[in-house]
Amino acid sequence: MGVTRLAAMGKGDATRAQVLAAGLDVASELGLEGLTIGTLATQVGLSKSGLYAHFASKEDLQCAVLDLAAERFADLVLRPAFTSPRGLPRLERLMDLWMLWETDQLPGGCPFVAAASDYDDREGPVRDRVAFYLEAMMAQLEKAVALAVDEGHFRKDTDVRGFAFEAWGIVLAYQQWARMLKADDAADRARAALAALNDRAATSPRGR
Amino acid sequence: MGVTRLAAMGKGDATRAQVLAAGLDVASELGLEGLTIGTLATQVGLSKSGLYAHFASKEDLQCAVLDLAAERFADLVLRPAFTSPRGLPRLERLMDLWMLWETDQLPGGCPFVAAASDYDDREGPVRDRVAFYLEAMMAQLEKAVALAVDEGHFRKDTDVRGFAFEAWGIVLAYQQWARMLKADDAADRARAALAALNDRAATSPRGR
Repeated sequence: MGVTRLAAMGKGDATRAQVLAAGLDVASELGLEGLTIGTLATQVGLSKSGLYAHFASKEDLQCAVLDLAAERFADLVLRPAFTSPRGLPRLERLMDLWMLWETDQLPGGCPFVAAASDYDDREGPVRDRVAFYLEAMMAQLEKAVALAVDEGHFRKDTDVRGFAFEAWGIVLAYQQWARMLKADDAADRARAALAALNDRAATSPRGR
Repeated sequence: MGVTRLAAMGKGDATRAQVLAAGLDVASELGLEGLTIGTLATQVGLSKSGLYAHFASKEDLQCAVLDLAAERFADLVLRPAFTSPRGLPRLERLMDLWMLWETDQLPGGCPFVAAASDYDDREGPVRDRVAFYLEAMMAQLEKAVALAVDEGHFRKDTDVRGFAFEAWGIVLAYQQWARMLKADDAADRARAALAALNDRAATSPRGR
């Protein structure tokens, strides 16, 4: 968050932003379910009733943390990737940054991946928000693949959605092998698998 | 559990088994962290102190539920797959049954996938147990791939561990698209991706 935006904030906004930033770290480390009004109030030095002035309910807090996570994802993954040239260079940059996001940008990894497993059986606003952002992330991935077709880097008959499915599976396996299994070869495996996926779609051996 | 084994059980064993079965359903639906002595005691009609007679701590209960989940996985995925002929038929059966396990065999999906994200930042016996079982599952997958090489269905230069990494990524993407995103094409996408993975390793177009 820029200094200007911080300076323009009222005290209430600044508190809210501080609570959300702390909440995102908790959600990253313990999962969204570990995020309760009580624990977060203690952490930022507010009373529970003080926190309820900012968030109507636990679900409201969890949704706001997901919104912040999505903003961070846009700042750290999508926007930088979109400065690369359209097509394969942009797609490769997107996947590099996405891998970093999974393992290095937050203290406990990607909150969306954890939430996808934890909330897939619950109904309600948190589940809906998780699904919304995952769909949006898949749409961005499909768009990057489609641009690689448009630019002539990938063949015209490339199955754009099938490509996105496989690329996302590689990222999911990467984050689990890297974070839970602490496998030294996780990043190399993922890069090799993504390169092979690109090669299969490429119009020429290196698609350029 | 067979009738003979049930009959041979003392009352304490039967209670423990009943608690664990209920605990596995809870872990599947809400995640392992949703599994507390208190909620589980209520669910099976015991007092909290009654439940502490069976499990020394929450971690002890969580580890026992993971053990039960691993037994179920062996019963529903590994053992049936191992009745198929060695090589590609066994590998294909393994992946079919693994996909079913992720989405259909428990009320809330695979407890290992959820636990892998939730526990990757914590130290302790639960994390260690989750990592142990995931490593064991990866080893079984690698073994099935290696047998397909031995049988001459896959090329001798097949990267067995790289194959397992990609196959597992496909399963991870499948369970998320099917369960969280409710994508109608999740199973078809996964089967197509697994078939393409097999074809890339195959000695002949269909590997047989």
